[in-house]
Amino acid sequence: MARLPIAPFEKIIKDSGGKRVAFSAGEALAEITGEIASEIARGAATFAEHAGRKTVVRKDVELARKHLRLQ
Amino acid sequence: MARLPIAPFEKIIKDSGGKRVAFSAGEALAEITGEIASEIARGAATFAEHAGRKTVVRKDVELARKHLRLQ
Repeated sequence: MARLPIAPFEKIIKDSGGKRVAFSAGEALAEITGEIASEIARGAATFAEHAGRKTVVRKDVELARKHLRLQ
Repeated sequence: MARLPIAPFEKIIKDSGGKRVAFSAGEALAEITGEIASEIARGAATFAEHAGRKTVVRKDVELARKHLRLQ
């Protein structure tokens, strides 16, 4: 799986009310978010195929986000 | 909100079965994932505060991912 850079996730925690942020927290958020993104991406790829397209486009991703029950 | 870089999300879509990936799809996945990350981060910051800590740590993020009902 693609590894996501950690720094933006540390910033997201700070922007979300975290007074101080351990490196491990940014790392965990990057990992967890990567898993969720993969789940949405799998749905998007399925929806593109279902629509007879080889190219995954924005609306496939939006549909996946809207309709998948994220685990 | 912190903007997430788009390239890793294009890669995630390719790794998840997308044959071709429109730029807009990577962009959408980065945006959507950023929103979900913020939601988890808000939960994590709340859990850290609830535990009497100023520092958000890995277990706060994991608890938020486990217990929040992602919208």
